[in-house]
Amino acid sequence: MSFSYVSHLYCPQCRETYHVEGKNQLCVCGSPLLVAYKMDELKENVKPESLVGRQADLWRYHELLPVQNAENVVTLGEGFTPLFQMKKTGQNMNIPNLYMKDEGLIPTGSFKSRGAAVGVSKAKEVGVEELAMPTNGNAGAAWSLYCAQAGVTATIVMPVDAPEITRKECTAAGASLCLVNGLIGDAGKIVAQAVKDYQLFDASTLKEPYRIEGKKTMGLEIAEQFNWEVPDVILYPTGGGVGLIGIYKALQELQELGWIAEDKMPRLVAVQAEGCAPIVKAWEEGKTSAEPWQNAETVAFGINVAKALGDFLILDAIRQTKGCAISVSDETLLEELNTVASADGAFVCPEGAAAFAAARKLREANWIKEDDHVVVLNTGAGIKYPNTVEVDAPILEKDAKIVRDA
Amino acid sequence: MSFSYVSHLYCPQCRETYHVEGKNQLCVCGSPLLVAYKMDELKENVKPESLVGRQADLWRYHELLPVQNAENVVTLGEGFTPLFQMKKTGQNMNIPNLYMKDEGLIPTGSFKSRGAAVGVSKAKEVGVEELAMPTNGNAGAAWSLYCAQAGVTATIVMPVDAPEITRKECTAAGASLCLVNGLIGDAGKIVAQAVKDYQLFDASTLKEPYRIEGKKTMGLEIAEQFNWEVPDVILYPTGGGVGLIGIYKALQELQELGWIAEDKMPRLVAVQAEGCAPIVKAWEEGKTSAEPWQNAETVAFGINVAKALGDFLILDAIRQTKGCAISVSDETLLEELNTVASADGAFVCPEGAAAFAAARKLREANWIKEDDHVVVLNTGAGIKYPNTVEVDAPILEKDAKIVRDA
Repeated sequence: MSFSYVSHLYCPQCRETYHVEGKNQLCVCGSPLLVAYKMDELKENVKPESLVGRQADLWRYHELLPVQNAENVVTLGEGFTPLFQMKKTGQNMNIPNLYMKDEGLIPTGSFKSRGAAVGVSKAKEVGVEELAMPTNGNAGAAWSLYCAQAGVTATIVMPVDAPEITRKECTAAGASLCLVNGLIGDAGKIVAQAVKDYQLFDASTLKEPYRIEGKKTMGLEIAEQFNWEVPDVILYPTGGGVGLIGIYKALQELQELGWIAEDKMPRLVAVQAEGCAPIVKAWEEGKTSAEPWQNAETVAFGINVAKALGDFLILDAIRQTKGCAISVSDETLLEELNTVASADGAFVCPEGAAAFAAARKLREANWIKEDDHVVVLNTGAGIKYPNTVEVDAPILEKDAKIVRDA
Repeated sequence: MSFSYVSHLYCPQCRETYHVEGKNQLCVCGSPLLVAYKMDELKENVKPESLVGRQADLWRYHELLPVQNAENVVTLGEGFTPLFQMKKTGQNMNIPNLYMKDEGLIPTGSFKSRGAAVGVSKAKEVGVEELAMPTNGNAGAAWSLYCAQAGVTATIVMPVDAPEITRKECTAAGASLCLVNGLIGDAGKIVAQAVKDYQLFDASTLKEPYRIEGKKTMGLEIAEQFNWEVPDVILYPTGGGVGLIGIYKALQELQELGWIAEDKMPRLVAVQAEGCAPIVKAWEEGKTSAEPWQNAETVAFGINVAKALGDFLILDAIRQTKGCAISVSDETLLEELNTVASADGAFVCPEGAAAFAAARKLREANWIKEDDHVVVLNTGAGIKYPNTVEVDAPILEKDAKIVRDA
């Protein structure tokens, strides 16, 4: 019985393979690498029942994760976030079986912690001492904090417009933080240069193979929380798209293990903002990769990614699952954010709100059917985005009374 | 098999009893009321093993909670927060077995959600349509959001100095929010008047009996997460003190059920800030209740409570468990906040940081022994308190390079 059944790395483009002992980055051909497991052995030794009674975090799936020695696990108790019905919002949209998986309830208040927990643990395992990454804020915050625990030095570069709280998190963690007058692509260029200049490990999205394994656990959890059935539709706010790629990978692996049925795959939906919708454009044009989006701008900062390195994997996942890509306006998503909070009491992040708004649009278009079981990923806590809500409250003096309108 | 084994309410001062079907507030004698359960029946029908495989939230303990009909449960997936070892912080303090229970990983990013989930569910069950409460921010945010889901109208009054994000949460939830130029006590007076003027249900701390039942689940979880052993010491940042009272109640109930040993009760520690330490003062003076603290002020706003209605219950819990009360300065707790983040990667709230700082002090005084198993309650997410961290990061232009010091 191994802690991990990891086997090797492979390239989804040129099929080259690599050992998992190295400080692996991209394939020699330039493609992201994916992680393979010894599935036959795993299938033999581990069953869904094996999970019962295990800790309620993502490490309950350790056999299907790449960390080989439990001592290298860096953890803040992340994962196994709640999945629950959004009754009133669902009624309101005429999707009676509408669910939310709330990734706000995770360390750092963002699903980025999943990638960081697994990515940093594996980096520690292979001996990485210093890493660098560009970020729209949340990933940098998460990697900084997990790196602190692991004793790995982190250099983080983020746009000046990234949510302000995330720079506080990087600083508290003791990371080396730079802000850039630009977008995440500009941060990426600065990181690429620093990686060369100082021989750092490049932890950029998909430039190391393990972040996706952390994100994959969202898919494992959705399946387990639905008691190894799967929903009909999963909506995912898509920037770099690692979560969507990860969920698709998880579902494929679960099918291979026979833990979920082979004849039903949820339709995966990539949700973007109208101000930055390269995947939607590529999808609508029937392309297999996306062009960089010009003048990208949206209040849903986490999905403000003009060019995703894994665009071909996102588009493939959507296509294979009979899903789609759809965009919503900032105005629409902000309105949805308030609707969801006042109806069901969930204060979601703008990216999550975009996914709810997309569900509404897809139901109106009858792409989502009334009896579909639909899961929206809320990728972070609304409390990280104070600017999404305007407050208009009276300030009373100590001796004042509340006077209601007649 | 009942969903709840709730029996009745009783007064811990005058021993009067009440039915659980009413919209109960304080006892006629002015004391808070506590909830009693049919413990013999419960002991007969429910065992620790009954919990295995149940959902990872606080409703897994539904038999020991007051909501009688599952349909009245208002939930956002709260509870069963992670409890994990703080290895480097523990080494640093010479407390090798130092643990944190992270209440940041809960809806609204604050442990107040526990009280709100159970309190609002029960309010819904007994037919409350409108409630009001004073708050230092987080409780108001939590009650607003759960009330939204329950369809209960909420009126919230909080100091202007309360964490700004909490007023956004109230607003998003659609609550009626007032700010007051003063402290929570002043907010309490305004609420008391509004309760009279408009016949509202008073959801102030301990003025309704069910919030404490929600908070109690922290104690149930700690026991279950330690596999029905208990730690030696639990440190709790204490404002109104409901959590501490609740944890003590939980441990007593678990002893009565025989789920934990009767001969070991953790020493409970009430942690306060030097700028507002009424419980510490009363404890040091050997009193059974506390006097209002003058000119209360601390950066740990959640524990800025000059007078706690349940002071006598807090002091009794500390005394009965051979615990203590201790205060730390704002400077010390802010320093500890950064130490914990950079050592173990946990970005805690200032109240949680106070509890870590108190653990350090108590270890130095040898009140905590080296082999004690110590649990610190981090009562909320650090991301709700952006002002605890100063950022000093360079802003680069797009074509800049990172230059390291030689």
